[in-house]
Amino acid sequence: MKQVLFLTGNVGKFHEAEVVFQKELPTVSLKQDSSQLVEIQSDDLEDVARFKLESFVKREGKPVSSCITEDAGFFVTPQLKGFPGVYSAYVQKVIGNAAILKLMEEVKDRRCNFQACIAFYSARTRKIVTFSGMVEGTVSFEQRGTGGFGFDPIFLPNEIPDKTFAELSAEEKSTISHRGRALMRFIGFLKENLDAI
Amino acid sequence: MKQVLFLTGNVGKFHEAEVVFQKELPTVSLKQDSSQLVEIQSDDLEDVARFKLESFVKREGKPVSSCITEDAGFFVTPQLKGFPGVYSAYVQKVIGNAAILKLMEEVKDRRCNFQACIAFYSARTRKIVTFSGMVEGTVSFEQRGTGGFGFDPIFLPNEIPDKTFAELSAEEKSTISHRGRALMRFIGFLKENLDAI
Repeated sequence: MKQVLFLTGNVGKFHEAEVVFQKELPTVSLKQDSSQLVEIQSDDLEDVARFKLESFVKREGKPVSSCITEDAGFFVTPQLKGFPGVYSAYVQKVIGNAAILKLMEEVKDRRCNFQACIAFYSARTRKIVTFSGMVEGTVSFEQRGTGGFGFDPIFLPNEIPDKTFAELSAEEKSTISHRGRALMRFIGFLKENLDAI
Repeated sequence: MKQVLFLTGNVGKFHEAEVVFQKELPTVSLKQDSSQLVEIQSDDLEDVARFKLESFVKREGKPVSSCITEDAGFFVTPQLKGFPGVYSAYVQKVIGNAAILKLMEEVKDRRCNFQACIAFYSARTRKIVTFSGMVEGTVSFEQRGTGGFGFDPIFLPNEIPDKTFAELSAEEKSTISHRGRALMRFIGFLKENLDAI
């Protein structure tokens, strides 16, 4: 069975990707690898995902397995000029959803989006290809739901505006989420390029 | 005249360092170099300063001039668990001082600090040495002053608790500031190791 390593320490991210792979491309097995990777400070998700992958590939020499990294962010734009963006994981860890709600108190324009970028290293071609996904929505007025992770409890997707991402099942979320969309693009590529793995 | 390159795109930082050098070590000339450097995401200022310097040294091969990088951060701790910390430049750029004041509304424990780390690459020994500095204070209730840069208008140093950093002259600020203290440690080292340059 063909195998792709998902280089991430985030169990939530891995689980979401696993669900999509099992449904859409069951002939490929996704395996988590929690290696510590170098993350750069950049305004661009693709830069971060690509740099992480390149640093892993350099460190390993020529990796035997094909592998992916993913970088995602929650962008409150225009009100917070894209904050927390590429620093979402750090902001979530230290000040969390309550801080975002505080900064958005009495703000009418609550538009925001989630973006994800997957970088794929092909062990055969030794090239990197990237796939992006995005979902637009609004910042809720209070935290709701226990599913997902990160900013999910305060994100109301435009497709289902009365539920936060944390109130959706993993399957419901992945059909509209940034990560689900990036994954579907990646899987579409793999279906036509299975020998790249 | 001996020369040290300060690798920074931040004119405010360079100016502060220049003032200290002219006063304390006028035989060494500090020169700004605005090369784009790779910044990593890390909770540790020393890691960021060191990585920036190492990536510059690697890129240049063997740099002819000795050089320094500096990384600094504004840490609101314990209330914001150190936010914005190592991501201060980004947070300042996108949401600024108003956002910090908003997050600190009605908060009694307003303790915070500035930290700086200077990494020095000796062109002679080809080694890197680091120097740290810190200043403690509190978050003000409103922005005051036009000097300095970044979070200076909302920082009240414990040594001069009725003035923000932005209300001090460059000289007054550098005698107590995180950057000034790190610089004094660096200058103390240089005075005893002038041949390292």
